[in-house]
Amino acid sequence: MSIILGIDPGSRITGYGVIRGQGSRFEYLGSGCIRVSGDELAGRLRQIFLGVREIIEQFNPTEFAIEQVFMAKNPDSALKLGQARGAAIVAATQYDLPVSEYSARQIKQAVVGKGGAEKAQVQHMITHLLSLPATPQADAADALAVALCHGHTRQSLISMAGQARKTVRGRLRR
Amino acid sequence: MSIILGIDPGSRITGYGVIRGQGSRFEYLGSGCIRVSGDELAGRLRQIFLGVREIIEQFNPTEFAIEQVFMAKNPDSALKLGQARGAAIVAATQYDLPVSEYSARQIKQAVVGKGGAEKAQVQHMITHLLSLPATPQADAADALAVALCHGHTRQSLISMAGQARKTVRGRLRR
Repeated sequence: MSIILGIDPGSRITGYGVIRGQGSRFEYLGSGCIRVSGDELAGRLRQIFLGVREIIEQFNPTEFAIEQVFMAKNPDSALKLGQARGAAIVAATQYDLPVSEYSARQIKQAVVGKGGAEKAQVQHMITHLLSLPATPQADAADALAVALCHGHTRQSLISMAGQARKTVRGRLRR
Repeated sequence: MSIILGIDPGSRITGYGVIRGQGSRFEYLGSGCIRVSGDELAGRLRQIFLGVREIIEQFNPTEFAIEQVFMAKNPDSALKLGQARGAAIVAATQYDLPVSEYSARQIKQAVVGKGGAEKAQVQHMITHLLSLPATPQADAADALAVALCHGHTRQSLISMAGQARKTVRGRLRR
């Protein structure tokens, strides 16, 4: 059993989503947003860092997943996003959580089955796959999506490893 | 008396410089680089975070200064720089150190007296102002420069406050 924390970092709002995975079944544990206040950079990064730590303390995840950033819009927003990512990832390393990164394409592919899916489709599928009573807020949905992507990818790696093991065994039996 | 830690963050090398200030006199305490190894992002950010924490534990600074980034070269390098900055600043907030940011222009102005000074001039002045036996490595020199800039700026604010106080007192005596 694994508990996966997905994080969608941002300089103003950092979304989080937590799921529990058993085999190929995933269950919703929680989601929400860390909203950052104040103008001072250090104080803002501290809020993200402490917020992520608080979520880790609350849910005890075993894995941490975050969206990989390939093409940031512009240098200024890339710097701000980088700072927020740095604060969130450092919080995860304080608990020795393995950190996995997934591209937006991989996430959409895993959740909707289409790498070029629209944001609304992702939100719809998240709501459906985790049997949520309502569509979660956008940042929380993105965080749940990266958590689900990690769960699926992890699961396929395990079953691929299982297949490989079977093949090897088959060979040994011959 | 204040002990100022200057940090020049980078995704591969993070320079640090520590000075002690008493009035308008500054004394060199130490400088060097945190060199990051490995390919995994989380591990790299953890090294910066733990490296900065180690320096704080060693020198017990009372203040933390870092260069402000206005114009990053491109989104990709801005993201990487942002992540490194985030990791370093979060380390400072763990010790409740006040974090100050200065633009490259402010730093050059404070150290060389010219906002458009060359990198070599900054290194030369750092070596001279802190009576160093040799020119420090580039990243360490940049970190010492931001620490000195903070020391000077702080000092001028204090003396301005002193002037203002004197003026007020003068008025009260009338």
